[in-house]
Amino acid sequence: MKRHAFTLGLLASFLLSAVAHYVRAPTFSPTVQFFISAVAIIFVAGFLGKATESVAHYAGERLGGFLNATFGNAAELIIAIFLVKDGMFEIVKASITGSIIGNMLLVLGLSVLLGGLKYKEQTFNVKLAGHNGSLMLLAVIALFIPAAFARSFTTQETSNLSIIVSVILIIAYLLWLVFSMITHKNELSDEVVEHGEAAWSKGLSIVFLIIATAMVAFQSEWLVHTLEPFSHQYGLSELFVGAFLIAIVGNAAEHSAAVMMARKNKMGAAVEIAVGSSLQIALFVAPVLVLLSLLFGKTMDLVFTTYEIIAIGVAAFIAKSISKDGATTWFEGVLLLVVYVILGIAFFLV
Amino acid sequence: MKRHAFTLGLLASFLLSAVAHYVRAPTFSPTVQFFISAVAIIFVAGFLGKATESVAHYAGERLGGFLNATFGNAAELIIAIFLVKDGMFEIVKASITGSIIGNMLLVLGLSVLLGGLKYKEQTFNVKLAGHNGSLMLLAVIALFIPAAFARSFTTQETSNLSIIVSVILIIAYLLWLVFSMITHKNELSDEVVEHGEAAWSKGLSIVFLIIATAMVAFQSEWLVHTLEPFSHQYGLSELFVGAFLIAIVGNAAEHSAAVMMARKNKMGAAVEIAVGSSLQIALFVAPVLVLLSLLFGKTMDLVFTTYEIIAIGVAAFIAKSISKDGATTWFEGVLLLVVYVILGIAFFLV
Amino acid sequence: MKRHAFTLGLLASFLLSAVAHYVRAPTFSPTVQFFISAVAIIFVAGFLGKATESVAHYAGERLGGFLNATFGNAAELIIAIFLVKDGMFEIVKASITGSIIGNMLLVLGLSVLLGGLKYKEQTFNVKLAGHNGSLMLLAVIALFIPAAFARSFTTQETSNLSIIVSVILIIAYLLWLVFSMITHKNELSDEVVEHGEAAWSKGLSIVFLIIATAMVAFQSEWLVHTLEPFSHQYGLSELFVGAFLIAIVGNAAEHSAAVMMARKNKMGAAVEIAVGSSLQIALFVAPVLVLLSLLFGKTMDLVFTTYEIIAIGVAAFIAKSISKDGATTWFEGVLLLVVYVILGIAFFLV
Repeated sequence: MKRHAFTLGLLASFLLSAVAHYVRAPTFSPTVQFFISAVAIIFVAGFLGKATESVAHYAGERLGGFLNATFGNAAELIIAIFLVKDGMFEIVKASITGSIIGNMLLVLGLSVLLGGLKYKEQTFNVKLAGHNGSLMLLAVIALFIPAAFARSFTTQETSNLSIIVSVILIIAYLLWLVFSMITHKNELSDEVVEHGEAAWSKGLSIVFLIIATAMVAFQSEWLVHTLEPFSHQYGLSELFVGAFLIAIVGNAAEHSAAVMMARKNKMGAAVEIAVGSSLQIALFVAPVLVLLSLLFGKTMDLVFTTYEIIAIGVAAFIAKSISKDGATTWFEGVLLLVVYVILGIAFFLV
Repeated sequence: MKRHAFTLGLLASFLLSAVAHYVRAPTFSPTVQFFISAVAIIFVAGFLGKATESVAHYAGERLGGFLNATFGNAAELIIAIFLVKDGMFEIVKASITGSIIGNMLLVLGLSVLLGGLKYKEQTFNVKLAGHNGSLMLLAVIALFIPAAFARSFTTQETSNLSIIVSVILIIAYLLWLVFSMITHKNELSDEVVEHGEAAWSKGLSIVFLIIATAMVAFQSEWLVHTLEPFSHQYGLSELFVGAFLIAIVGNAAEHSAAVMMARKNKMGAAVEIAVGSSLQIALFVAPVLVLLSLLFGKTMDLVFTTYEIIAIGVAAFIAKSISKDGATTWFEGVLLLVVYVILGIAFFLV
Repeated sequence: MKRHAFTLGLLASFLLSAVAHYVRAPTFSPTVQFFISAVAIIFVAGFLGKATESVAHYAGERLGGFLNATFGNAAELIIAIFLVKDGMFEIVKASITGSIIGNMLLVLGLSVLLGGLKYKEQTFNVKLAGHNGSLMLLAVIALFIPAAFARSFTTQETSNLSIIVSVILIIAYLLWLVFSMITHKNELSDEVVEHGEAAWSKGLSIVFLIIATAMVAFQSEWLVHTLEPFSHQYGLSELFVGAFLIAIVGNAAEHSAAVMMARKNKMGAAVEIAVGSSLQIALFVAPVLVLLSLLFGKTMDLVFTTYEIIAIGVAAFIAKSISKDGATTWFEGVLLLVVYVILGIAFFLV
């Protein structure tokens, strides 16, 4: 009964916001469109969370979280490819920055805080925490080196460095998948605590995860579009909109999935969605975009602005410090959110 | 018998140095004044150490250390308020820097070294160590971000950022107290080892702690005043005097209290005095001074000089690295002191 | 039988490459000289590895590794003294940088990777790992502070700061030896697993270690000399040659010794060779060179270029992150090598 009501709400709000987006009827004012999209994203977020949980039931917390993060990033990758094609490199890099810090600070922070308010201490695999920390450091180094050396370089040399670094990062990320999913899978997994039944069968869970992610992708883009009139009206900078507003609103569904996992004391899945997603963007999505830009004739380099590097570095250091012991408390969630708010205000004022 | 001699020495040296300070009789040359104050500070330091220990006996090492740090910082806060009122922001910020690195490097270093010469390895709560490390990082980030963004900002925007960051830090610090003193008190406490009796009853211990801190506050200020002729005579820079000399001499009593705790293998109390005090200054005292400056008409911002940020950053990173495993050895004390000396020389030469 | 063949190959290739180096007969083209030296270095590397292993059998992994690192650095120190005498400070500093990052990233990375391909997880003393990490941080701080403050200093002040910092670092390093070899020797050692017999008696092992190191020193220098024509021909920068080519080729033998230890699951010895060697160079060799330069009339300062400090800082942070838990896996070796390659390309392009 309750399930049917949810399905109905999901489909109705999704269709309504699709209509609002494509029809652009004058009846739908920006505020109404935003409201419809916001309601719809709550429903698809719920659907995505359920699907992730069900997949995690069969595949383990980490693989469930990884699939959630990957499908989510696939959607972002597709949007970014169109921007790269149009040569809008600054916006792409701002949104990469926003995704990284949004996941490491906002999503992880909310999950840790809200999970921590329910459970005194939440734990996840401490070896995974250590490896995640080292990978965060690699991400910071890989984005910092091109920027640090760029001032001595010609544009051509910067392009070359960016391309080579991109190839190296992609190889490193693929080796990380080999390591964490194959050779050291068991060492990095959480103790599986089987309680209750999964919502759906194994096959159906995966199908639903894919469908939910696709819905999230569309819904997020529609929601992001409703932001435009606002950001225009209030004179917000492209950097702030790209690095904060879009990252927050566009990833709302993944955020809820991570929080939902944390509230069920499945911190391993929450960390995988938050941190795993950040790492995937820094070590895989960004480099892939650099290489794809070669096909479109003009190379996007890996040189981020000083403020972007500061933001990513600060996010990585505090997230590393908090997660490295494989245990989290509500106050650590506060710390992550505090850093996010400080960065947000600084970017807002720039 | 021995106790009466101590009480006599304490009162006599305190009164004598009060007279020397307020009367400014020509009979008291700067050197004599300095000598009197130095003897007096040894006595009040002993008194403060005893009071801290007695409070720690009843309240646990952490709360004892926290009270010691708080009363000590309250005195510094009062002195700083007068400086803020007079618009002497640079001196206030130099002394904030000095207090932070003095506590993290000199006080912690001496405690760890001198405690480590007596005990092979000294331990304290490892979870507290982890949280302290993350808070140190927050302190560095919160002081670094305004300075990093200030060059793109107008004075007004820098003020605004400083005010907002200050409010956020105060909230974060208060939540930290809720976390560490209420919701997760037991998780962060040291194992209580009850040996021997306390010097005084519970109530008397707290009264004596307050009295001792007040005496320390006065005595420190008088001692600092005797420094003026010296620093003038040797042409020392304001930055060096503010960040090193005043911090060393003015905090001499707290230093001895921390060392005394370490020598009694109560490392938890020593860390709380040293690191806890640094964190309180960075996350509470400095922001409060920013907000108070609003009342006096001219906003003090949170923009520290590059050298100050380097010093605080370097201090936080090495202190974090050394304390994070909840165990210390004499050599780690050496490391902290080495970094302090290197910073001191660099600041002296600037 | 097999042993005799090895001894024959060792002596023959060593003598042949000595002849090629000193005779410079036209029959030996640069390519032939390089080839002879490369074969010879493989033999002396094997000899050094065997000697290290045999010493480690008697003295423990750490002392064996320490002796290996020390003899290896002694050779580098001697070469550097001649360069300092000639006032070639930039090359000396580039080669110091190269040794530090080469050991922390390349040697450690290869050892961890190749050891990790054989063993799922390799461990070494976790307290040693913690102390190593703090010492790495001290090294970074000690090289960063002079560079950071140099812009406000006169040449004389920079010299003074460099000299004082050098004296402090040497004292700190000697105290570290006292700490790690005397007062806390047992706390920092690996569990000794005695399996099999040593190749030689205790006395002979040490004699052979010294002889092997001397051969490595000569052989490395001859090999490095064969590099000159190449680097000239391809227009490589002095910084790249000094910091990468020489460090790789000149330390080839130590590299193999560390890898050999790792492949025998003696990670403690491998870490000591790699990290211990880096630390010895940063905290002892570099400061000694500064002090020696005083004798030659012109002070070498401790001010490294921004790129050198970035390289050392990045190397120290990732090596610290990976080694701090006292356990390594093949993927962590990949991470170290990835950072080394990224730095190498950036330096190559400068």
